Amino acid sequence: MRGEAGPASTGPKSKPKWDGFMSVTTRFTLYYWPIPFRGCFVSYLFAYRDHPLAMAGADDVAELRARPPGEQPVPFIGPPVLWDREANLYLSQMPAIVPYVARVLELFPKTPADEALAMKVLMDCNDVLMEICNYNGSKMWTPEAWRSFRGERLPRWMQIFESSLDRGFIGTDAPHYGDIGTFALFGTMTRCLPELAADLKAHAPGVFDLCERIGAQPSLKRFRDAEEAEFGQRYCGGQIEASIRAMLAADGLGAAAERA
Amino acid sequence: MRGEAGPASTGPKSKPKWDGFMSVTTRFTLYYWPIPFRGCFVSYLFAYRDHPLAMAGADDVAELRARPPGEQPVPFIGPPVLWDREANLYLSQMPAIVPYVARVLELFPKTPADEALAMKVLMDCNDVLMEICNYNGSKMWTPEAWRSFRGERLPRWMQIFESSLDRGFIGTDAPHYGDIGTFALFGTMTRCLPELAADLKAHAPGVFDLCERIGAQPSLKRFRDAEEAEFGQRYCGGQIEASIRAMLAADGLGAAAERA
Repeated sequence: MRGEAGPASTGPKSKPKWDGFMSVTTRFTLYYWPIPFRGCFVSYLFAYRDHPLAMAGADDVAELRARPPGEQPVPFIGPPVLWDREANLYLSQMPAIVPYVARVLELFPKTPADEALAMKVLMDCNDVLMEICNYNGSKMWTPEAWRSFRGERLPRWMQIFESSLDRGFIGTDAPHYGDIGTFALFGTMTRCLPELAADLKAHAPGVFDLCERIGAQPSLKRFRDAEEAEFGQRYCGGQIEASIRAMLAADGLGAAAERA
Repeated sequence: MRGEAGPASTGPKSKPKWDGFMSVTTRFTLYYWPIPFRGCFVSYLFAYRDHPLAMAGADDVAELRARPPGEQPVPFIGPPVLWDREANLYLSQMPAIVPYVARVLELFPKTPADEALAMKVLMDCNDVLMEICNYNGSKMWTPEAWRSFRGERLPRWMQIFESSLDRGFIGTDAPHYGDIGTFALFGTMTRCLPELAADLKAHAPGVFDLCERIGAQPSLKRFRDAEEAEFGQRYCGGQIEASIRAMLAADGLGAAAERA
């Protein structure tokens, strides 16, 4: 996922290439890699509301990302980037995009306190993403580090979400972007890495149920089925995903040995 | 900074100890370590507005942090945590606390688009913090990794902030939490690690000037002078701060050798 930006385009600034392949009537376009990881925090808001969202191709994402900051439509290091054609606004940073979109889609909490708590939940999601991909894949998982993550750190995070649910930060009758974010985190984690579903059920049974409920919403379910049909169980991509899967496989062998 | 939470308190739940040492008339209390790093993104908002903020002691921070999530006033992994006594609200996650406080202190942007761009800038700050402390000190800096960070990644980030300034996301006549955040990031970085001031001036001269301007605001200057008198140039603390300083010292020796 990570990696220094490629060489900047040296040619003359041309009209963006992606104009051709999306409807001009679609207000929002998401630039992200063809993996769910951080992008699904945005796309699932649209899917939940059955609201149109155009998806840019990976080549276009790579091209934007490689430009010098002054030539990017918004200066950024990594996607997701959202383009709001109506507002003539490009926006980077998942935790900035999500509340912006949530306001439009009426998935925004009602009071400043609830808004702050939704952002707290979203930032917790963001931190867990950082941790499971070992900080943007800056190093591969070792058995020792993984044992500490799966045995202590991830359970603690799951308990934190369960406690956030118990306190009504999420899981109320008025779902907001904190709920969809919790689903984007744990629903995606357990879909792509099904070995971890038992961990979630053990440490955060209420959050497990919340994810089941949100994932059953018809338009979101359709979107995810299409996503899975196209990309399978791909999660965060790259070597770091292979590293996570190797650790899970070794855990599985260990569990099998214990059962034997 | 990082480290697993200590053993949970097993004694009976007692009244918080910090009630004694702060005025009961202070609405806001910040729980953070005695370092500026992430905490100053909150405290500088108050200092800029000359608004009272009580600071909890490190022992109290450690005690809250060590509790099981269900017994914390808000479930969290690491500080900062803000207590709003008037709203009876505890809030974790710096990027959730800052906009919440900024609304109260009238350092909040006026439109949803400006609000989203302020959050984008704050998240950029958050990412740079993560990178300079090598992901919460999860590993120490090596000369090779540092060379890549100081030579490529940090300049790119600085250019991103400069471009954000050029586009008016920050640096306007109506400073908001994105401006104070930019100062909390780069003003603090260059105060505590003055070797990096030349880097900022080279790659983001406008941001350098913005930080000078914000840092000259009288009530904020008083707060920072008091902070420096008490804690000196301490930055992110721990072994990772020592690792950063070792890299900067080695860079300095290299530069001296080139001059010789």
